[in-house]
This record gives sequence, C-alpha cells and structure tokens, in this order.
Amino acid sequence: MLLKDARVQGLRAGQVLFLQDEPSDALFVVLEGWIKLYRTAASGIEAVVGTMRDGQSFGEAAALCGQPWPVSAEAISPARLLRLDARHVRRLLQSDPALATSMLAPAFQRLQQLIAHIEVLKTCTSVQRVAEFLLDLIAECDGDGPVALPYNKALIAGRLGIKPETLSRTFARLRDHGVQVDATTVHIEDVVRLRDVMVEAVS
Amino acid sequence: MLLKDARVQGLRAGQVLFLQDEPSDALFVVLEGWIKLYRTAASGIEAVVGTMRDGQSFGEAAALCGQPWPVSAEAISPARLLRLDARHVRRLLQSDPALATSMLAPAFQRLQQLIAHIEVLKTCTSVQRVAEFLLDLIAECDGDGPVALPYNKALIAGRLGIKPETLSRTFARLRDHGVQVDATTVHIEDVVRLRDVMVEAVS
Repeated sequence: MLLKDARVQGLRAGQVLFLQDEPSDALFVVLEGWIKLYRTAASGIEAVVGTMRDGQSFGEAAALCGQPWPVSAEAISPARLLRLDARHVRRLLQSDPALATSMLAPAFQRLQQLIAHIEVLKTCTSVQRVAEFLLDLIAECDGDGPVALPYNKALIAGRLGIKPETLSRTFARLRDHGVQVDATTVHIEDVVRLRDVMVEAVS
Repeated sequence: MLLKDARVQGLRAGQVLFLQDEPSDALFVVLEGWIKLYRTAASGIEAVVGTMRDGQSFGEAAALCGQPWPVSAEAISPARLLRLDARHVRRLLQSDPALATSMLAPAFQRLQQLIAHIEVLKTCTSVQRVAEFLLDLIAECDGDGPVALPYNKALIAGRLGIKPETLSRTFARLRDHGVQVDATTVHIEDVVRLRDVMVEAVS
C-alpha cells in the first residue's frame, strides 16, 4: 500500500536529484550508492549537511509538510533510489495514524544526526573529526583489512567541516597512530590506538 | 483536548529542565523566557544547539518517538513553560491523523534550523556570524533604538560557534560598521551598513 506508485530511479555519479528551494514532491529511500545533501551559501560556498547511504531515507519532513527542499541532493556515486510520491503518502496518512507516527521516526533520527554533527563542529579538533569518521567507517565493515573510502577526499573534508589541505595533513599525522591512507582506501592497524586519539587532547 | 493534563512549569535562570540521555516524557511550549538546548561532548565542552524563546516548542520528536533526550535543556532567564504529557499526546495521535501530520511541522522546522546552523558553521566568518545574529535580533524588534541582548555574551559566542574572545574582538570591529555594544544592549546605527558586512569578504 505504501509502495503503490513507488518507482526505482537511477542516478549517475554527479547527477543532481533536486535543488534547495525547489518544491518537494517525493520521499526517497537509498537502495544503492551514496547521496550528498548540501546547502549553497549566498557566498557560493557549499556546506555538506549529510551523506546518505543504502537503507537510509530522506525527504519525509519536507515532502509531508509540503515545504520546499531545505537542501540540494546529488549522487556522489552511481545510485539507485526508491521514489515514493508525497501526495500518495499524505493521503495514506489521513487513514493510518500509525503510519504518521512511524514517519516521525526518520525525521527524529535526522534531528539527532544534525545535533551530533553540530556538536562535532563546535567541540572537536580536526584530528578528532577525522578519527571519528574513520572509526564510523570501519564499524560498518567487518574484519580489519583495508576499507574503501566511501567518496573522495574533498567531500570527506566538506562533510567534516575542515579544509582539504587540513584533511591531508591530518591523514599524515594519523600515520603515527597506525593509520595508512592511500588514494581510495584506508588501513587501520589498531582500532584501540585510533580510539585513543578521540580522548587525547590532540589539536 | 490536546491541552488536557497540560501544566505550566516555572524555571529559575540556570535551572535544568532535563539532561541528555534521560527518558523523555513531555513536549514543551515556551510561554516566557529563554531555554538553551545543548550537548556536552565527551571532552566536557558544551555545544549549544539551540536557544528557544516564547512561542517556540521543543521535544515533539523525542517524546513522540519515545526516545531519550538528544540534548539537555536549561533556562537562561526566568522562564515559564507549558508541559504536555507525551503519553497523552501519543494516545491522541492514534485517533487523530491530522494531529500527527501537524506534529511533523515543528520537527521539520527544527530540521531546517539545524541545517541552516550547520551551513553558517561551515561557510561564514565570525564577523558574518555576529552580523547575522544582530540582524536577526533587530528584525524581531520594531524601531531603531537600542536592543537588549537576549542572553549573556558567553552564550552568544557558544551559539555562534566562536570563542568569547573572538566575539569581543568582532564587536570591536563592528564599531566601524556603526554597531555599538555595551554590557547588555546593542545599538545599530544603520541596518543597511551592517547588512553589507554579510556580503563583503570580511574575515
């Protein structure tokens, strides 16, 4: 019933799904690949607000409130999305209160992620931000072999709110903590040693 | 019906309403005063996530999803709040789908505010952050007389993600743009001149 009229949409890497301030008419579930959510400031500088991967959904709040998109969305790898028509979902909501409550959950999760992101931007050094990013990355993978970086380094820097050159310098500094990064992969010798960086006052 | 069992709660300046990770059991509407929402990082550093004033509500998402509080809340002035029992609101939601949809709206507004805040943290210089804060402040007041600062300077700095000493330096620099700040009030000679700061590449 929820998936009535849902359709699968493919995107090439770099393809824009929607732009901020455009009317929103759909919610999306990522089936495959990575989607970048970002704002473009009046100065032209881009602020990455989130990176969504398979299993994650976005657009609930904008589409259900009938508000324009607060962010732009762009595929940062080849991607496949499930697109749910917002009007159809709003009609369903009228007859199914449980669905409405369940729709609050992803909006709440997004709130929590944004709050955590603000905390990191305001309280963590760049070394701590990079260490946390790498720890999240390996937590999602099993085993201790090399892990592929999910997207390019300029975007990783943007996501962490640091300059690309600061990211390169930080990767170099983390070599002393058993972290090897090449163009596309990262190898972490010892997770415990990297986790220690998070509590040390490294600046 | 929604306000059944609602009660008014008074807080002294500095009084804590709830702490992050505690169970959430209510939604709040600010009737009077200011409430600070903040996270305390593992390092002990506090990150201000929002400052809520009269007419604004918070806690919808946490209380309706039955999740622990993602933030702590503390009164930063004497305050009065309307406290709605979350269980009562959840029961109402079962029978009133329109209420559920209307509850998504504040959660969405909060999302938009957080996204805008991340944009500012990632793209604006400290001078631009302070100028924007002052412009928001006078937009809420009529007339061009002195405007009271809503809370103390340490908290303003925290809200803007800059150090207190940077805030003092920025206030001093803004004198050249017709802005006079003393202990508790700000006087802006010319809004247009201040607005120009937002587009200039002041660093």
